[in-house]
Amino acid sequence: MAESTVLNNLVNALRCMPGIGKKSAQRIAYHLLQRDRQGARELARALTEAMDNIGHCHRCRTFSETDICRLCSSAKRDRSLLCVVENPPDVYAIEESDYRGLYFVLLGRLSPLDGIGPDALGLDKLQQLLAGGEVQEVILATNTTVEGEATAHFISEIVRTHGLRVTRIAHGIPMGGELEYVDSSTITHAIAGRREI
Amino acid sequence: MAESTVLNNLVNALRCMPGIGKKSAQRIAYHLLQRDRQGARELARALTEAMDNIGHCHRCRTFSETDICRLCSSAKRDRSLLCVVENPPDVYAIEESDYRGLYFVLLGRLSPLDGIGPDALGLDKLQQLLAGGEVQEVILATNTTVEGEATAHFISEIVRTHGLRVTRIAHGIPMGGELEYVDSSTITHAIAGRREI
Repeated sequence: MAESTVLNNLVNALRCMPGIGKKSAQRIAYHLLQRDRQGARELARALTEAMDNIGHCHRCRTFSETDICRLCSSAKRDRSLLCVVENPPDVYAIEESDYRGLYFVLLGRLSPLDGIGPDALGLDKLQQLLAGGEVQEVILATNTTVEGEATAHFISEIVRTHGLRVTRIAHGIPMGGELEYVDSSTITHAIAGRREI
Repeated sequence: MAESTVLNNLVNALRCMPGIGKKSAQRIAYHLLQRDRQGARELARALTEAMDNIGHCHRCRTFSETDICRLCSSAKRDRSLLCVVENPPDVYAIEESDYRGLYFVLLGRLSPLDGIGPDALGLDKLQQLLAGGEVQEVILATNTTVEGEATAHFISEIVRTHGLRVTRIAHGIPMGGELEYVDSSTITHAIAGRREI
């Protein structure tokens, strides 16, 4: 490999990124050294700045530079709706829709085999929120995996003890999706969840 | 997108890497924030260290932390052989073989349309090396693209004015390659370059 310890260190360090193997790391290192040293310096600065400043919102647990994130501290959001998702990227995905309630981010899903229980998901914090009196409906938007469904079920039981409404986002044919290309499990959900028009 | 300026900065900065688009950059940023903050800090350090310390060897122009790279300053190399390549990764590729001569790295190839002429390729430095009296054979290992071939031809003319031997690496069937899967241009080269056994 490379005849330089510093270059080897860079190639190894680049591999902390998901999807970047040895060959990609080498290609990236050479590209940065040869064509974009400025970009590499900016990346180093942005990485350090992000790791130093980005923590989790004390209320909803999404990524935030401040104790309470912009969404949770906004006066324009409907505080009676609370959408529960697994990870911060899910928040950004739902923000592209017209949903204007608040969020709670589990930062994972129940997975007893991996040692991820209710404590790791911040469910004590969720209980506090539910007891606060503002929330009237909890929308469960965990993923449709086995663990995601189990997590949704587990949380729905908690919400019911607070006497609040609890819903699950609809699963069905995606907009613009063609029936013949949709998997049978999705079609089963779409038919079971059919509505009067 | 993300509700955090620092996070947006990180996602944008990650895109300086080749092959990393907006979606990949987001995925990498979330992964680092959620699972590998230590790795991200090490990457920032390795990037800065590499940009600060890695320059080009004054003799062969490959990447080096020192004025003269390890290969050029090694007493174990055959100084009568000089292999000309386009880029530093080519050096590392050839080092995997049993070649033990020295190198000259063009850091590009002749490409008049992109404004890359002989000056940008350090050919004045190459001339100095050839005039130095140590080199007896120049092996041209530029790529087999139109520009790579033109660059090889251009340099061969320079080498001849110094009265030195000039050769081109062989093109033919790769070792372990099966004839039926090799392209016709490679087969043409392989037949034209056949040797007595």
